[in-house]
Amino acid sequence: MVSRKEIRLSGSGGQGLILGGIILAEAAILDGNNAVQSQSYGPEARGGASKAEVIVSSKAIDYPKVEKADVLLALTQIAYNKYINTLDSNGILIIDSTIEHDHNRNIHKVIQAPILSIASNKVGRAMVANIVAIGLIQQLTNVVTKNSLETAVLNRVPKGTEKLNKSALLEGYQLAKNKYYLEAASV
Amino acid sequence: MVSRKEIRLSGSGGQGLILGGIILAEAAILDGNNAVQSQSYGPEARGGASKAEVIVSSKAIDYPKVEKADVLLALTQIAYNKYINTLDSNGILIIDSTIEHDHNRNIHKVIQAPILSIASNKVGRAMVANIVAIGLIQQLTNVVTKNSLETAVLNRVPKGTEKLNKSALLEGYQLAKNKYYLEAASV
Repeated sequence: MVSRKEIRLSGSGGQGLILGGIILAEAAILDGNNAVQSQSYGPEARGGASKAEVIVSSKAIDYPKVEKADVLLALTQIAYNKYINTLDSNGILIIDSTIEHDHNRNIHKVIQAPILSIASNKVGRAMVANIVAIGLIQQLTNVVTKNSLETAVLNRVPKGTEKLNKSALLEGYQLAKNKYYLEAASV
Repeated sequence: MVSRKEIRLSGSGGQGLILGGIILAEAAILDGNNAVQSQSYGPEARGGASKAEVIVSSKAIDYPKVEKADVLLALTQIAYNKYINTLDSNGILIIDSTIEHDHNRNIHKVIQAPILSIASNKVGRAMVANIVAIGLIQQLTNVVTKNSLETAVLNRVPKGTEKLNKSALLEGYQLAKNKYYLEAASV
């Protein structure tokens, strides 16, 4: 049973966040849950921030729009600044190490991790930051199972990049085991 | 000015309908409109039919769910059977030539065209059926401009497949000029 979870993935265009959202949604289906995956484009889509959203629930999803996210991923400062106020007060914030976080904000749980650097330098391709990020999200939230996520990644990434993306996923899992946590206190 | 248009793309998994939806949404943004692109997955996602949805409007899109589609694309019989009742009474139905259409239905406009066959046999790759289909949709609806659609296709398709997909788009445009119309009568 997964009660409704709303996940917002944000960053810049080209970081593969839509694909990340599609993969999370497909993993949820493989787990036997329901999912809605969407991107809204508007005037803000021309301003440098990109976002994709996923809602997962074991029940039918009547209202498909993310209002207050339970999980907010921000890979760029622009995305952080734009979406930080859309995180639920009990939500989890996951941000790249390159982002300056405002510690005065009263956020339930903040995880800051070198997602972009791990993708570029350890896995070797900046384009897999999305997969590193969803691996980290899986470990922190259990919104999807590892088995389903791995299957969904291999189903959806371009042919020939399966091994690269599997490595990226494992690096995302690994990140969750390190102590990149800025804060872990409940409010 | 584009008043709100709701487009549902349906078929089977692997036909690239999500990518088709993303491309239509991005073309709408390039035109200066707003768009929401989504896929809902549920128990039905395990049953062989896949769908992706796009809403385009020159105004803000408050309610992001497609209720009655203005345009329904169906590439398989299973998708046709499942979604035919979700087409608005003033909507346009676009179906592949392999689908058996129920002529007793009172549908405003029906276009039946060999989308899958053109992709496989004329362009040479079944996987570009999605691009043939969105080219046809562009010509039939003008929901996005040709210029923006071409830019969005080239932005979004896998590197190395640009020429193939451009050909597919042109074939989609061409289909609209032929008389594949089953019915064109207003109700």
